[in-house]
Amino acid sequence: MQKTKFAAASLIRPMIETRLPDWVEPLWFMSKEEALLVAPQAEIGWFDMYDKAEMFQVISAATQLKWLNSIYAGVDGMPLEQLARQGTVVTNGTGINAITIAEYVVMAMLNIAKGYRNVMEAAQRQEWLLDSPGKVELYGSKALLLGYGAIGKLIEERLSAFNVDVTKVRRTPAEGCLTPNEWRGRLSEFDWVILAVPATPETDGMIGEAELSAMKPTASLINIARGSVVDQDALIAALGAKSIAAAWLDVTTPEPLPAGHPLWETPNAHISMHLSGRAQTLMFARSAERFLTNLARYKAGEPLAPQVDLSLGY
Amino acid sequence: MQKTKFAAASLIRPMIETRLPDWVEPLWFMSKEEALLVAPQAEIGWFDMYDKAEMFQVISAATQLKWLNSIYAGVDGMPLEQLARQGTVVTNGTGINAITIAEYVVMAMLNIAKGYRNVMEAAQRQEWLLDSPGKVELYGSKALLLGYGAIGKLIEERLSAFNVDVTKVRRTPAEGCLTPNEWRGRLSEFDWVILAVPATPETDGMIGEAELSAMKPTASLINIARGSVVDQDALIAALGAKSIAAAWLDVTTPEPLPAGHPLWETPNAHISMHLSGRAQTLMFARSAERFLTNLARYKAGEPLAPQVDLSLGY
Repeated sequence: MQKTKFAAASLIRPMIETRLPDWVEPLWFMSKEEALLVAPQAEIGWFDMYDKAEMFQVISAATQLKWLNSIYAGVDGMPLEQLARQGTVVTNGTGINAITIAEYVVMAMLNIAKGYRNVMEAAQRQEWLLDSPGKVELYGSKALLLGYGAIGKLIEERLSAFNVDVTKVRRTPAEGCLTPNEWRGRLSEFDWVILAVPATPETDGMIGEAELSAMKPTASLINIARGSVVDQDALIAALGAKSIAAAWLDVTTPEPLPAGHPLWETPNAHISMHLSGRAQTLMFARSAERFLTNLARYKAGEPLAPQVDLSLGY
Repeated sequence: MQKTKFAAASLIRPMIETRLPDWVEPLWFMSKEEALLVAPQAEIGWFDMYDKAEMFQVISAATQLKWLNSIYAGVDGMPLEQLARQGTVVTNGTGINAITIAEYVVMAMLNIAKGYRNVMEAAQRQEWLLDSPGKVELYGSKALLLGYGAIGKLIEERLSAFNVDVTKVRRTPAEGCLTPNEWRGRLSEFDWVILAVPATPETDGMIGEAELSAMKPTASLINIARGSVVDQDALIAALGAKSIAAAWLDVTTPEPLPAGHPLWETPNAHISMHLSGRAQTLMFARSAERFLTNLARYKAGEPLAPQVDLSLGY
């Protein structure tokens, strides 16, 4: 019997090798060069690499691919049109990092609310502050949540326990939700604007000068989506002019942000270096479990989950 | 008609003066000396002062006092026996600060979990970290909550939304709770030990060398009670030996902690300078509302709330 060829990066090997079924022939690769050799033969591929440009090049070379798996939630930059043309099913990591990212968002909001960075700086100086540099309570505040996928749902659950009034933006009109055409006109009502949208042409630059000007001067922006969702120059200007209170950026343009970049020195910009999803130990274990479950479904001809809609890009 | 004499610190004046009923004669004081003059005549007193030793001296001089009100939750150091002997009813600020303190506790746990202090320090150096210095999720972790008053209840609500398994310690045996005799034997089960107890002779030094040794090396201690609840020397030793992972101390011995104190330089000690309760803008407003409600009850001969049990000390 012909085995099914599965090309995968070596870093994934220890997580799944001993649990792969007989009908799978793994083709492990250690470098981009090795990956480019095995990719064209692969029916199933798991090509996650730290260098995204190299990873996308490898995916483009996988012309016989029926199923592409990724640990990452975002598929922006992947050759989505080619994958659609080939009929490749793409399963992504949506939800794998959702718990820690949702925890990170609440941490971000609390640190901003309590002015905790200033407390920590005072502690570095061994100075005992007599009053709190931040005096905001999450309790009773209002948050606008843009993006209601796996992460958004967990953010909402946690913030509700803090009595934060969470307003979601959804395509389908629903009780307590705003539609994509409505939220801009309501921006001035919120204490928090949380970006948890996928990176798509539609969300590119969705927060720019106009949106930042519409926010309350006491409001803060939290971005755990992609740097591209925010017009970063406009944000730096808004923070400099104090037209909004603070921004917490887990994501920036570019990444890594080089030393000397103006964002590092922008007042009230908090930069968390795309670490929110990495602040957990279970990412690989969760991803391996999901892949192995999908592998059994693939063999049985059942639908894989979660599948990326290649025309929507998430 | 004889008016009821009410002695109060001037800082309280703007919060309540215009709303005091006719039958009350306010005696505002600006200093300890003025306070000592008016205190002996007062039937109702609100003597909160930043210097606690002076405040307790003034309370001791209030020998005709029928009702003592305070914005603070803790009454440790007050002349409780004298107050009991005089039949003085004491209403305290329990719950006034509970929301912000509960928020602070979650912030503390998240900052420890994600190693966020190291992220902030890297940002100060404009260094982009490639991995998270902390990889703990609150999700699925276990917390021991000592103290289940207004603050403890709000902590539990919030942590439950993070899927933290919260075990409470209560005098009365109850489902999912430990009794005061049981928790020491179970310390090794918990990832978080949260101190939210009142400062009483019973809780003095309740966390010492034995308790710290029993905790997991990966566990963290959060103290938002009083510095006296922890044997601080034993804690410094435990943190130095890494026999526990971290301690978050909103309270210390002494306060303020002087520059040069070893606690400032103890690894993984996070010192938040008794700011947790101050990280809000509504403390005075909430306290004023509560006092005015109690004032009406006092006139009507109805019970005041929340009343301190002077024999228990909280």
